[in-house]
Amino acid sequence: MSPRLAIEYRDAAPEVRAVFDDIKRTRQIEDVNNFWKYLARDPATLKRTWESVKEIMAPAALDALTKEMIYLAVSVTNGCGYCIASHEAAARKAGMSEKMFGELMAVVGMANETNRLANGYRVPIDAAFEP
Amino acid sequence: MSPRLAIEYRDAAPEVRAVFDDIKRTRQIEDVNNFWKYLARDPATLKRTWESVKEIMAPAALDALTKEMIYLAVSVTNGCGYCIASHEAAARKAGMSEKMFGELMAVVGMANETNRLANGYRVPIDAAFEP
Amino acid sequence: MSPRLAIEYRDAAPEVRAVFDDIKRTRQIEDVNNFWKYLARDPATLKRTWESVKEIMAPAALDALTKEMIYLAVSVTNGCGYCIASHEAAARKAGMSEKMFGELMAVVGMANETNRLANGYRVPIDAAFEP
Amino acid sequence: MSPRLAIEYRDAAPEVRAVFDDIKRTRQIEDVNNFWKYLARDPATLKRTWESVKEIMAPAALDALTKEMIYLAVSVTNGCGYCIASHEAAARKAGMSEKMFGELMAVVGMANETNRLANGYRVPIDAAFEP
Amino acid sequence: MSPRLAIEYRDAAPEVRAVFDDIKRTRQIEDVNNFWKYLARDPATLKRTWESVKEIMAPAALDALTKEMIYLAVSVTNGCGYCIASHEAAARKAGMSEKMFGELMAVVGMANETNRLANGYRVPIDAAFEP
Amino acid sequence: MSPRLAIEYRDAAPEVRAVFDDIKRTRQIEDVNNFWKYLARDPATLKRTWESVKEIMAPAALDALTKEMIYLAVSVTNGCGYCIASHEAAARKAGMSEKMFGELMAVVGMANETNRLANGYRVPIDAAFEP
Repeated sequence: MSPRLAIEYRDAAPEVRAVFDDIKRTRQIEDVNNFWKYLARDPATLKRTWESVKEIMAPAALDALTKEMIYLAVSVTNGCGYCIASHEAAARKAGMSEKMFGELMAVVGMANETNRLANGYRVPIDAAFEP
Repeated sequence: MSPRLAIEYRDAAPEVRAVFDDIKRTRQIEDVNNFWKYLARDPATLKRTWESVKEIMAPAALDALTKEMIYLAVSVTNGCGYCIASHEAAARKAGMSEKMFGELMAVVGMANETNRLANGYRVPIDAAFEP
Repeated sequence: MSPRLAIEYRDAAPEVRAVFDDIKRTRQIEDVNNFWKYLARDPATLKRTWESVKEIMAPAALDALTKEMIYLAVSVTNGCGYCIASHEAAARKAGMSEKMFGELMAVVGMANETNRLANGYRVPIDAAFEP
Repeated sequence: MSPRLAIEYRDAAPEVRAVFDDIKRTRQIEDVNNFWKYLARDPATLKRTWESVKEIMAPAALDALTKEMIYLAVSVTNGCGYCIASHEAAARKAGMSEKMFGELMAVVGMANETNRLANGYRVPIDAAFEP
Repeated sequence: MSPRLAIEYRDAAPEVRAVFDDIKRTRQIEDVNNFWKYLARDPATLKRTWESVKEIMAPAALDALTKEMIYLAVSVTNGCGYCIASHEAAARKAGMSEKMFGELMAVVGMANETNRLANGYRVPIDAAFEP
Repeated sequence: MSPRLAIEYRDAAPEVRAVFDDIKRTRQIEDVNNFWKYLARDPATLKRTWESVKEIMAPAALDALTKEMIYLAVSVTNGCGYCIASHEAAARKAGMSEKMFGELMAVVGMANETNRLANGYRVPIDAAFEP
């Protein structure tokens, strides 16, 4: 198999189709996005990743929007282009307004700044923050 | 001045005391935490950082708890020990339950995993995610 | 010199040609890849980097394939697009099958996830892991 | 529950004990290490993480030692202190010699260096590396 | 508002125009670069970020060139494509020669390498380096 | 050999002693710091790393202080505790004042912030910054 080919539904093995079907059903979408089509090259990783994502992203103590914004915050911090694009879309679908996006970016930027100030000044942890 | 010394209130210049006072008033606390005492070695950075943090972390389109959890998500991703300790404390103070903490960590872990799967499989961005 | 120009063999100074020749001889290839053509703008960095890579990547206690997969694991973690592309190619040339690639990505993803879980839960190092 | 407490076997709920038992059986060890005791605060994350680790780290196209060295390479790149300590121990248990450790570190260091050289020189991907 | 649109001067609100004007005046340029046009979607972030950048990047104990090279070193380490491109341009404008660029990249590469060697060998901090 | 032991001069093989001697001579110091004593476990890595550091850090187009500050900027960005401590010491020895340290940290913090703003807003590179 040539690497870097997406696996489309029509060419997929039954175990891959089963995952694609579950993604489409769960998210109410017509087709899965590229991430899943590429992971499909390794059916075990596809299945495990989807099942983990499905379990973790389901609303519980945190709602869907909060979870998607956290996902986006991590992706922006890591500089993952694909993940930034796909999770901004997911967060907007879950209700993130332009104003919320702006505040999210402001917090992410600030945290990345103060993380380095704490590193550089070698700040010892306050006793009050210890368990 | 010996580097890595915290500046305590009693030893601080008026411009530093003014910032410490504003932090204590805004957060309703007895004393500022180590981060601010170390930054006080550079009064301009202390003042600018506090004013930015104060503006960014004020509840607006996103509430205080959501902002603190995003801050913690970034700090965990970057592995900043001081920031993880202080922002877990801040998030709990803002209402993060043990259950919410567990879900937050699960999302942060998952995002860090799928960020690398997207990198490694070199997944191209779907047209639907482009502006 | 205009920045960001690749230095081609025909335009290269003798010291650069000597490095290019050694790369081509060592790797049995027709032409060096872009990484080396860009580094050639700084002949000292070109020479030192190639000599280090040549020494480090030579099979010894670890074989060539294992070394290339480790290189790819680091590049994926850092999100370096060029390095992911070039070291996936190198690893495949050294014998990495599609199945091995899938397992490599799974380990890299998992490690990036559990690194953050360990950070976030602030897990203390077990006495058994201390030297 | 006080945060940052490890959950010991004697205090664990049945669902946590079941995971601890499976870890001990699979790895042939007396007690689980701190990572699992801390994750046990969120039983769903404990179970999912262990099942993923168990599936991913089982020898298949890549052997156990190679997988542990890749895990260590990622942990060193991310600077996760706990993970470096625990996965160096795991890699040594799986057969990593002092010589192999030295070569692993050399590759990890080199990859982190050349990742930044490729970034900084803004090297375009060679056509040969495209899919 | 459609996300990911740059705000051009002709379409900008007065508060955004005021920041754009100050950037153009301070830097003696005809038009602001894309970074500011995108930030303009959140006028509060635009204003705060510009005021911080203006204050921090003004020559003081460190000159403008040194500051721009440090900015570039961080951007290369983080792998931020936009930032690498814009701060290489800024550093060259401030006087960075091709030779200085080569040495800067060499230091950045080396630091990224030895950071991981120190992590991997778990080197304890010398007493002499403690405060 | 037990891992994680520092190699002291009195116990070192001749090839290691030769490197230690060169470090002490070049830097005019009594004893090498822990980083080198740990690397000494792999004499090839010790020698190659020292020779690279010696070549790269020698004053040329950039002076010693500028190079040490860049090294510190990278170490702070990566959060390498050992490297932050040792390169702050080296930068101060090379002449970094408390005021310069403060400005350096401010630039490093700011760069880490704007790197994420550029990522999150998905800012396209201006034509003027392309080669």
